[in-house]
This record gives sequence, C-alpha cells and structure tokens, in this order.
Amino acid sequence: MEFKTVGKGEKRKDAVAKVTGKAKYTADLDMRGMLYGKIFRSTIAHGRVVSLDISEAEAMEGVVKVITPEDVKGYIFPTSGHPFSMDPSQRDIADRPLLTDRVRLYGDEIAAVIAEDELTASKAVKKIKAEYEQLPFYLDPEEAIKDGAVEIHEGVKNNIVGHNKIVFGYIDLDEAFNKSDYVFEEVFETPPVQHCQMENQITYAYIDGNEKIVVVTSTQIPHIVRRILANRFNLPYGKVRVIKPFVGGGFGNKQDLCLEPLTVFMTMAVGGRPVMLNLTREECIAYTRTRHGMRHYIKTGVRSDGRILARQLRSYGTSGAYASHGHSIVGKQGSNFSRTYSAELSSSFEGFTVYTNMSTAGAMRAYGIPQVTFAVESHHDNIAEALSMDPVAFREMNLIKEGSVDPLGHVSLKSYGLKECIKKGKKYIQWDKKRELYKNQTGYKRRGIGMACFSYATGVWPHLLEISGARIVVDQDGSVQLQVGATEIGQGSDTIFCQIAAEAIGVPYEMVDIEPFTDTDLSPFDTGAYASRQSYVSGHAVKKAALEVRGKILKRAGKALNTDVSDLDIVDGNIVKVSDSSVLVPVGDITLSSYYDKETAAPIVSDVSNRINNNPLSFGVTVAEIEVDIKTGKIEILDICNIHDSGKILNIVTAEGQVHGGMSMSLGLALSEVMLYDPETGKHLNNNFLDYKIPTIMDTPELKADFVEIYEETAPYGNKALGEPPTVAPAPAIRNAVLNATGIRVNFLPMNPQNLFNAFKEAGLI
Amino acid sequence: MEFKTVGKGEKRKDAVAKVTGKAKYTADLDMRGMLYGKIFRSTIAHGRVVSLDISEAEAMEGVVKVITPEDVKGYIFPTSGHPFSMDPSQRDIADRPLLTDRVRLYGDEIAAVIAEDELTASKAVKKIKAEYEQLPFYLDPEEAIKDGAVEIHEGVKNNIVGHNKIVFGYIDLDEAFNKSDYVFEEVFETPPVQHCQMENQITYAYIDGNEKIVVVTSTQIPHIVRRILANRFNLPYGKVRVIKPFVGGGFGNKQDLCLEPLTVFMTMAVGGRPVMLNLTREECIAYTRTRHGMRHYIKTGVRSDGRILARQLRSYGTSGAYASHGHSIVGKQGSNFSRTYSAELSSSFEGFTVYTNMSTAGAMRAYGIPQVTFAVESHHDNIAEALSMDPVAFREMNLIKEGSVDPLGHVSLKSYGLKECIKKGKKYIQWDKKRELYKNQTGYKRRGIGMACFSYATGVWPHLLEISGARIVVDQDGSVQLQVGATEIGQGSDTIFCQIAAEAIGVPYEMVDIEPFTDTDLSPFDTGAYASRQSYVSGHAVKKAALEVRGKILKRAGKALNTDVSDLDIVDGNIVKVSDSSVLVPVGDITLSSYYDKETAAPIVSDVSNRINNNPLSFGVTVAEIEVDIKTGKIEILDICNIHDSGKILNIVTAEGQVHGGMSMSLGLALSEVMLYDPETGKHLNNNFLDYKIPTIMDTPELKADFVEIYEETAPYGNKALGEPPTVAPAPAIRNAVLNATGIRVNFLPMNPQNLFNAFKEAGLI
Repeated sequence: MEFKTVGKGEKRKDAVAKVTGKAKYTADLDMRGMLYGKIFRSTIAHGRVVSLDISEAEAMEGVVKVITPEDVKGYIFPTSGHPFSMDPSQRDIADRPLLTDRVRLYGDEIAAVIAEDELTASKAVKKIKAEYEQLPFYLDPEEAIKDGAVEIHEGVKNNIVGHNKIVFGYIDLDEAFNKSDYVFEEVFETPPVQHCQMENQITYAYIDGNEKIVVVTSTQIPHIVRRILANRFNLPYGKVRVIKPFVGGGFGNKQDLCLEPLTVFMTMAVGGRPVMLNLTREECIAYTRTRHGMRHYIKTGVRSDGRILARQLRSYGTSGAYASHGHSIVGKQGSNFSRTYSAELSSSFEGFTVYTNMSTAGAMRAYGIPQVTFAVESHHDNIAEALSMDPVAFREMNLIKEGSVDPLGHVSLKSYGLKECIKKGKKYIQWDKKRELYKNQTGYKRRGIGMACFSYATGVWPHLLEISGARIVVDQDGSVQLQVGATEIGQGSDTIFCQIAAEAIGVPYEMVDIEPFTDTDLSPFDTGAYASRQSYVSGHAVKKAALEVRGKILKRAGKALNTDVSDLDIVDGNIVKVSDSSVLVPVGDITLSSYYDKETAAPIVSDVSNRINNNPLSFGVTVAEIEVDIKTGKIEILDICNIHDSGKILNIVTAEGQVHGGMSMSLGLALSEVMLYDPETGKHLNNNFLDYKIPTIMDTPELKADFVEIYEETAPYGNKALGEPPTVAPAPAIRNAVLNATGIRVNFLPMNPQNLFNAFKEAGLI
Repeated sequence: MEFKTVGKGEKRKDAVAKVTGKAKYTADLDMRGMLYGKIFRSTIAHGRVVSLDISEAEAMEGVVKVITPEDVKGYIFPTSGHPFSMDPSQRDIADRPLLTDRVRLYGDEIAAVIAEDELTASKAVKKIKAEYEQLPFYLDPEEAIKDGAVEIHEGVKNNIVGHNKIVFGYIDLDEAFNKSDYVFEEVFETPPVQHCQMENQITYAYIDGNEKIVVVTSTQIPHIVRRILANRFNLPYGKVRVIKPFVGGGFGNKQDLCLEPLTVFMTMAVGGRPVMLNLTREECIAYTRTRHGMRHYIKTGVRSDGRILARQLRSYGTSGAYASHGHSIVGKQGSNFSRTYSAELSSSFEGFTVYTNMSTAGAMRAYGIPQVTFAVESHHDNIAEALSMDPVAFREMNLIKEGSVDPLGHVSLKSYGLKECIKKGKKYIQWDKKRELYKNQTGYKRRGIGMACFSYATGVWPHLLEISGARIVVDQDGSVQLQVGATEIGQGSDTIFCQIAAEAIGVPYEMVDIEPFTDTDLSPFDTGAYASRQSYVSGHAVKKAALEVRGKILKRAGKALNTDVSDLDIVDGNIVKVSDSSVLVPVGDITLSSYYDKETAAPIVSDVSNRINNNPLSFGVTVAEIEVDIKTGKIEILDICNIHDSGKILNIVTAEGQVHGGMSMSLGLALSEVMLYDPETGKHLNNNFLDYKIPTIMDTPELKADFVEIYEETAPYGNKALGEPPTVAPAPAIRNAVLNATGIRVNFLPMNPQNLFNAFKEAGLI
C-alpha cells in the first residue's frame, strides 16, 4: 500500500516544545501558594511502629501539617493501572495504605510533612522520631513463601500475592517428558531493576473553584488515576480531575498510583491548598516500582532431532512489599511462554508472585517478558549446545506455526514475520561464518555471537477491556485539531496519531495538531499508555474519528461542488475528482462554509470511542556479537541489531528511537543493573545514580534496528506493538554470545564483571 | 410545564470559585518570563505624527523592544466581534492599524514598549517623544459629516462609516404625515457612556511549544478573536489558540479586539516570549469602546384619538475614531424602531454612523436600543401630554399586534407578554392613583411616576448566522461534564447551561459540571456572548447534546434491564419505569458499563452543533416613581421596577441579578454618566472613577424585578433574551416621571443636577 505520511520519518509533534524547553512538565506548572510534602520513612525493613513522635516537626515554623497513619486510617488503595473490570474477581488488590505503622520495606511510608517549602519539609521529616518492633524480613520470594514465614500482609498465607497455573497439551505432562529423548532442567535468575525514567514521580493536587480535586501528575494512566481516586475517596467522578502535562518517561513506573492518593489526602488536609509531592531520585529508585526479580525453574523434553515435546516452567516473582500489579506480570509470563515456541505434546506454567520486604515491583517495559525470555532463550541455547545443534536451527524447528491460534487468548495469528526476522538477523550478523570463526577460541579475549527471539502481544485483550477515544475538530481553514485519551509520555504516540489522522483524512501531516495534555474532564476516554497498545488500540480510534470527518467533508464537498461523493477524494489537503484526477478546491473552502453558511453551517467534528477485540503478536530477534575479557569479566558489544516484526512501521525515525531505547534498557539488564539490598538490614544499597549502573553513552555501542514490515490486517495501518518489544531480546542474545565465546552457561543477570569473573573462575577458565 | 431544575434559583456554578477567590482571571495566570507592554499615546486629538523619537526608551535597562507604526505597517484589523459572513458585503470594516502615525483621537496608539516589568514599560513610554501636525477635530457627528470636514479615515467621504435606511409602510411617508391630525417633531440626545465592567481589558500572548500563538484574553468572543487573528496574521487557524479564563464582565466592551492583535504582534516581536497588555482603568474608559452617543430627530404623525399614522426617525451616531461595530448598532436601532409600536400607515428610519475624534464606540449592553428607546418613549409621553392622553393608554393603542410578523426579519411573534407587563407595571406603581395624586404639584420638591416600554431581539438571526456547540461526557458514575462554546463572562450562562443539561437528561443539577474556561482548540464552536443570545441559541445546543446522551443512556438501560426504551425515563438521576413509576437503578449503573463492559463499552458522549433560524422578541416595561428637587436638580428614585417578558425564567435568582444589574446601568445613563471631552483639545476629561460617575451603592435605590412568564415555544425551555433588556427602559421611565412631576420635557441624558438645574431654570421653574 502507498501512504502519504504513514511510514515517513515525520518530525515529532513535540520536538520543538522539547528542544526549546517550552514543554511544560508537572514541575513547570507550579502554582501560587503551593505547599510541599515530604515523607518520613522507616529505617527498618519489616516490623511495627510502636511509637511515633511528630511534636518537634509540627512545631517547626513553616510546617503546616504532619500526617500520621492514625489520620489516614481506612484509606487502603490498589495502585496498579489496570482497566477496571466489571468482573470483581479481575480487580486489583487493595493493600496499600496512604501511610502505615506496619512497616513492610526499608523506607516504608510512615508519616508525611506538609510545609511552605521543600527545605522546611525535609528538615521537619528529620525531626520525626519512630520506635519499632522488628520482624524478620525476606529478600527472596522462596524464603517468604515458606511455611512459617511471617505474613507481610496479615492473612495472606505464605505471602502469596497470586498463583497462576496454565496447562495445555495433548497429553499429560509427565507422559510427555517420558516420551522425550532428553530432558533438560535448569534455573535462571533475573534481578530486580528500576525504570530510571528521566522524570521522577511528581504530583500536585488542589481543590479548585469548582470544588473539584485537581490532580496534576506525571502519569501514564490519567483516567485510571481518576477512577481509583474517585472510588477510594468516595467522590463523584465529576469531582476529580486529573491532568497529565508533558511526561518525562514512564516505562511502566507511572502505570501505578505511587503519589496521587497521598497527595489528594494532603490537599484535603489543608483546605484545598495545592500540595506537591516531588520525589528525589533516591526515593524514586527505592520506593516507587521496580521490575520483578524472577527465578525460573525450567524443564524441557526434546526428541533427539531437537523437537520439543514437553515444556514446564515454574516462576517465582518478588512482588516486594505491596501487590501493585499483583500476579498479572507473572501471569503474562505464563501466556507468553507458549507464544513463540510450542511443545508438540504438552506445556505447563506455574507462577508465584510473593510478597517480600523489597521495593514494590510493578509494571516495567515488557511486563515480565524480558525475564521469561531470558530464561527460555538461554535454556534453548544450552539445549542446542547439548544436542550439538545450531541454536537457530533448534529455534526454527520449534517455532509456532503460521496461522496458529493462541491457546489462551484464542486470538489467531495473522501477520507472522518472525522467520523473516531470524533470516535477516542471521544475515546481518553473518551467522554461519562467525559461528565457524569463533569455534575453539583460546586466550583471555574471546568473541561470540548470539541470538534471541521473542513474541509480544499488542494490548491486553482478551484479559481486559481494550477501548480508546479520539476527538477531531476541523477548523475553518481545514486545520485539524486532534484530541486523544491515549497518553503521550515521551514514546511519540502523539506523532503517530497525527500521522494516522492526516493519512485517513487526506491532509498533509503539518495540518494536524494534537493537544499534548490529557485532562480527564476534556480528553476522550482511554485507559492509557501500557501494553504497547496505543498505536494499535488508540490508533484505531484516531482513524475512526478521521474517517468520520473525512466523510463529512466529502459530503459537504459533494453538495457544494455538485459532484457525486463517490467520485471525490481528499488528497494533500485538496478535494480531488477521482475520475479525472483534477484538483477541485482546497479542503478549507469546504470547511469554511461548515462554520459560516447561514443555512447549513455545522462545524465538522467527530468524537468517537472504539473497542478492539483483537491482539496481534509482534515478533523479533536480537543478534549480537561480543568480545569478553575473561580476566576482567568485561563484555564489549561489538555489534548488536534488533530486527522487529511490528507490522507496518508508522514512523521510521521514531520507531528506530523506540528500538534504540529498548535495547539500551536491555543492555543495562544484561550487563550492569541490579538493585542491591543490605542482607543485614534490608536497606537499599544503591538507590542513586552513582551506585546504580544504568548504561551511559560511554557504555553504549552503536545500536542497529531493522524491520520486517508485514501488514497486519487488524491494525489501523498494518502496525503492531513496538513500544516494549525492543527491550526483550538483547540480554539473552548477549548471554548466548557469551556462551558461544566461552562455553560457559551464564544463567543469571546481570553479567557484570564481578559476576562473570566469579562464573569464569568457578568454571576454571581462570 | 413542570420542571425539576429549570426555573429554580440554583446556586451559580461559579459561586464558590468567586467567593473564595479561586476563580482564575487572566491576570491570575501569569507565566514565568512574562514581559509587559505599555502603549505610547497621542497628546492631540487629530493629526499626524511628524517625528517619533524612541531612542531614550529603547536604551533603558529592562526595555526589550519598542514598536513603532513603521514596524507594523500593513496590519489593519477589523475589531468588532461579529460572526463571519460568507457574504463579503456583510463583513466588518477593517480600519484599525496596530499602531498609527495618523492620530484619530486623543490618546491614539502610536508606539508600544515591551519591558521586563510594568513599571519599566511605563517609564519608557514617558521617554518617547512625538511631534505632530494637527488637524481640526470633531466631537459631534453632525460636525464631522459636513461637507468640507477633514476625512478622519482617508477616502471615507463625509466621515460616514455607514448609512442605514429602512422604509416600510402602506403609503408614502409624506402622505401619511398629511393624513395625520397632529405631527410632532423633536430631537433627543443621549451621551457616550462607558461600560465600566469590573475587569479592565487584559490580554497576554505567547508562542507555545507546539508553535501555536496562544492568546489568553478577557473576551466575550474567543472563537471570533481566533478567526480575526488567524486571518490578519495569515496563519492557519490551527496555529492560533485563544483561551478565555474567568472574565470580570464585558457588557459588549469585550466584544471587540482592543488588545489581542497588538499583543500577538508583540510576542512575535520577542521570539514568542509571553507579553501581557493590561490596561489601566483610565485607558479602559477612554481607549477601549463606549456606548454610541446618539442624536435622534423624531417625527410622528397621529390621529386625534392617539393612533400613530406615520413615524420617522433620523439618527446620528458617533462612531468615534474607528469603525468597530460599524453601522450595525445604528442599524439595529432602525430594526427596533418598529418592533414595539407600529404606525398605521408608514414608517421610516435613516441612520448615520459617523467618524469623530472621540473614543471609539462599540457594542454596549442592548446595542443602541437604550438610546432609541429613550427617544421614542420620551417622545411618546410628550405626545400623550400634548394630546392630554394617559401615556399608558397612548402606548397601548399603538403597540404591535399579537401574531404580527417582523417586517424586517420576517420572524413572527409568538410569545408576547408586553401588555401583561404594562398591566403589572401599572398595578405595581399604582398608576392611576399616583397620576391623580401628582397632578398640579407646587413647591420645589415634586413627585412623579413614569413608564417606558421596549422590545428586544434574542440573537442576531436573520442578519447574521446563529450557531452554537456543546459537548457532554457522562462519567462512569453518571456525573455529567459539560463543555460549551458559549462564553461565561459573569452573566451566569454556565449556570443556566447546567440547569438545561440536568433538566433534559433527568439528573439533579448537582451532578452537572461545566468547564469554565473557553479554549478554541478544545471547546465546541460558538460565536460568543452578545445579543442576549446564549441561553436561547447556545441553550438549544446544550439541550440537543443533553437529549442525545439521555437517549444513549436509555438505550443502554433498555438492553441492560430488558425493558422497552419507551417505557423508561430518567428522573432524579435514576432509571425509572414509566408504566409503574418504579425506580429501577441509578443512572451510574448504566453508565459504568458504558465504560467497562468488555463487549459493549462505549462511553456516553455527545458533541453537537446547532443552528437557529429564529429570533423571538423579549419585552418589558420599567415603572418608576421619583422625587425631584427643582432647586438642586437632584432626582431621588422612590421606587423602580422592571417587569420583563423574557419567556420562561430559567433561574429566578440569577435572572433577578441580571435585571438589577441592567437597571443599575440605566440609572447611570439616566442620572449621572457621560464621557466628557475638553472642547479645546479633544482630551478626555473624566476617564477615571473619581470624575466619571457610575452609581455606587449609595446612589442606588432598591431595585425591583418582576416577570411575565409566557412560554416561548421556539426556545430550549420557553426562554427569551434577558441579558440586555433590563438596561433599556429605566432611563426613559425616570425621564417620564420627571415630566410627570414637573411638566418639563427633558429630551437629553444624563439628567444630572447640573443639566436639570439648567433645564428647570430655562423653563422658568426657578
């Protein structure tokens, strides 16, 4: 298909705002009379507050109020940003008090100070004194799940937040293993890491002149924030207004209500004056959300030719101190487990999400799939090696089949470009040549190549509702004003929506503007930015709205130009006669009269909502070439490329940006990132950017991106998920390259020098 | 008809915002980095700038830029806030340069300073030096219209901005006068007065991150401001965004672009930094807009029984230095001239709108009708006196007939309560008793009663387009979010719209919220606040939007409750079964599933536009009782009451507020207000609140309001114009009471002590 703007590298709609500094983030919107909150946090990891002395803090000049657990009794929130479900069993776990005297992690939120300025608030927090009764704490889900472990949340047996079980197969699992020629059992482990989005969590709230609670917040899910606040504070929806300004990244960390409930309570406590909670980086790393640290017990039965007959995965995820996204991340691992590869006979997944006394784990880019993919893709290379098979050949033999139907979601596979991605990846990295070349290396510096594959769903259907809204107003001169409910958080969705609108209407991209703020009172309804859903799900709403205004323009044009509508088209902002390709008039000639014709005026507007009952799979591979220094344990990435089947690419420049960003995050997971806890106290050891090692530009190799563009028929313009997928495969690809280089099976992350040195030493390489 | 909220005295939606000070006006929305503009004004009334020295101003620290006429050449604007017309002959006169070296009034805008703060800007303005070549100036339209007068705008012959002529009758006018038993000829004069709205004109503009010019302005007509700016700066509509915060009154003064074009030029001149223009009260009175000072030559031929056979009116209106609303105000006088009373044989109107070197006249509450009504209603009392008739009986004999069709607009009269208003007025003031009582008074303090009648159109149809828009989003719990394009400027329209929406949907008033800001990118399209149109014209759009969501709710309810929709109603926020009046479920039960049902979700929204091809007449009378002190010329209002036929009253409390406010303005016009000019220099003599006498609370008697509520079938809820009408009749009613008290025909306004003393002296009373 030929497109005018879809697919092109159009300039981001927010480019000028961002490079000029005009983009307004939450912190830029300070109000007169703003107060500032700071949180008093526990200095134990698990226990109870037995006494709390706020008297000195309260007495400080500039302190307006100190809030304690006593003040907020009964306010228990769910925090995760899932769409609401009409089915009560599908709703999120409410286990998060606004403030707590039952401490569940080091730094848990016990009290809060509201002061005239941030410095005073910080000083006052230091004057609060607490005494504790300590309880044993757990930094490993398999410790916390044991019988006899203290219940971190009273009544939650064995600290199990959730237990997922998925079994499907043609025969019993044990029987399938019995039929296998070889059975491989391994354990893989990935650490908790943090999003490290550029903008820390920040929220302010006040009560406006309309007696509404207005919450200005850096969030991915404004409409969900509104719902949770309205429900838990027992307010009409009409009395809660959530505004999302420009957002400096989220990656899932802002798919949770970390600050909003407490901020709302604070403004209510001070008569509606604006109160801001602005986390420091140290707080953001330790006390917002993290990726789930996971341990995977994986068992695979294969036939001697490499065909997998039976697969079993048992996963333990640390939920940390609170439920947040509950068991749905581990659950998503379970669904994903059988979406790239299938077992011929039987497949089983069991997952446990377990409370620990660690930072609360929540959504993070790719929502559990990087962890399970690390396990599966590493395991596959280990099996291939054991079978002396080429690991790519092993993969190809076990891939899901064209046209297959997802056994869980019952969504059938349409576009399926994974095999083409593998082909491209092999070619790019010169697979056969390099595999040959890197055999039998000696010396301390060795090279290797590796590959990892993945699949990724586009949205949350059929587990949850997929709905989105868009509104278009066509101005007098044909300029297009677009409003969406979807949430631009830096990923570039607004740009994509403008391309979709321009394409569907038939006007140049430059004629389309989009409102960058979300305002739950004014923006169409959409559940937000998560699950790589927006270009697909919300893109549908935008296209629907665009086609509706296009139809209205053509209808008016037909009347005005006395021409059959079926013979009219809109091309480059002009009304064109299809039969002879003549340009009749600019769109603006038609839209002007839609505003001002005394007898027929009716401005051209559409305001639509759209549900999607579909969820196509994206696919991709990473190929990587590395050199590892066995003496230092340091890995150098020589070459790395992600090849994605995300359907038609809507904007080649921003798509590459997404891929590069995702790869960079996976490099961190692979090579350097891990949240560390003091085993003696449970205290965070590296919640700052000196000690927590995200890759800097000095650590980052050139990142390559390529695409296999198969048009996905269920999509607005052939597109599928691309937001999260890039961060799935680089870590296992690098890990497999290390295996290729050294023969050592590194079954954990991160592969930082310390860890690798130990592994190599243990294996006798040094 | 029985209504749940329509008609009730519901609390204004902006009440809390205003009494708590939380309502945000333009000045409250200051931005970081704001610059401030000040205008350098002429010190002559008419002439040319021959030299301009800005060097000292430019050199001042803190001055960012000085703009001169040279910089803004070619930017000539129309300023009046009329809806655009597809007919070029109906468009407004563009005669207003951003800055000018051709001075047309004292204080004309020659140069502008942009500085880091207001004080610096003011100081810099004082350092600008101009030399002038002076021309003769005109403070009377009949001077400016003379042959040989200097053209204030080059090429505009005899300084005539516009010339209206309306003739209709069954026979020739002269013949009709010939057939009359008596012919009365008089001259009436009303002065230019000023709106004195609470909030002065204020605007700021900047270029935002989306490369849009954002104009935040205290205006009645945001969408019109956008159109004029886009057109004249040659920008796509999509690149101009106009935001209207809370507005502290307009009364027509903000139906003009007094500041917006220059403010936009200013921000463009400083690279998009925000620039604010905030007028002082002195500037606002002299250099924004005024009511047209008018002179009316009126001639009436009557039969001996009092029936009017022939009527002729010739009016001269001073347009001041610029065209602003052009000839449409004098034109509206012409249409109104025959809407309350009709001549049996012939009627003629001729109006001249003439440039003078006075403040520019524009729209002001009731748009010319107070002036012409003063002339007609005073003239009628004079005729009745000459015929020894009761003035009420004279009126009743000559009123238009039930069911008559407006000879100009061809709109037929439906609801017609004027006769009932007269009856109520007579009763209230004890007409017959008091007329008897006040006969043959002697002494210096004399009492009298008077009456004046009027009619007033609701909107601008058929002269111009009548269109409006509304959007409703029903929240999850049934809360209703309403957005309108109509402009709340303090008159209470938002409250009315919420009542209409609540009534039409079937939910309590408290469940409806309305967005108080207008934002041309987000708000539905509407031409704005003028012509007493909003409750009628925009009310229709709100009702249409409300009925649409009501229908959608009922449709969902029908399915959910398995009941025929025709048997369902919404009452007090509940779905009710009509056939047995049983309450089934709250609306929120239905709307919740409209958001979250996985298979059927579609949030309930409406986004409508509505045209109205109708324009019902409102009517009313004022009755007044006064005591005048002949020695001092001071009038004391003993009693005054407005009785309005504005159809069904939508909110009894806010309606009374409108009436009181309008009466107060008319008291000013009647008794104390006049803009004075120095005849030697053309300089304003009283453009401040020490010297310009608007009534204070000390000057204001108790104001009474009453209504004749005849349901107008063409209206959303039976309503007609009420915004402007209250200010039409009090002045002539008081004037007629003075005639009744003293026998002196005061044919001018204001009747301040000085003027009355002179009149009484001239008449030999003292």
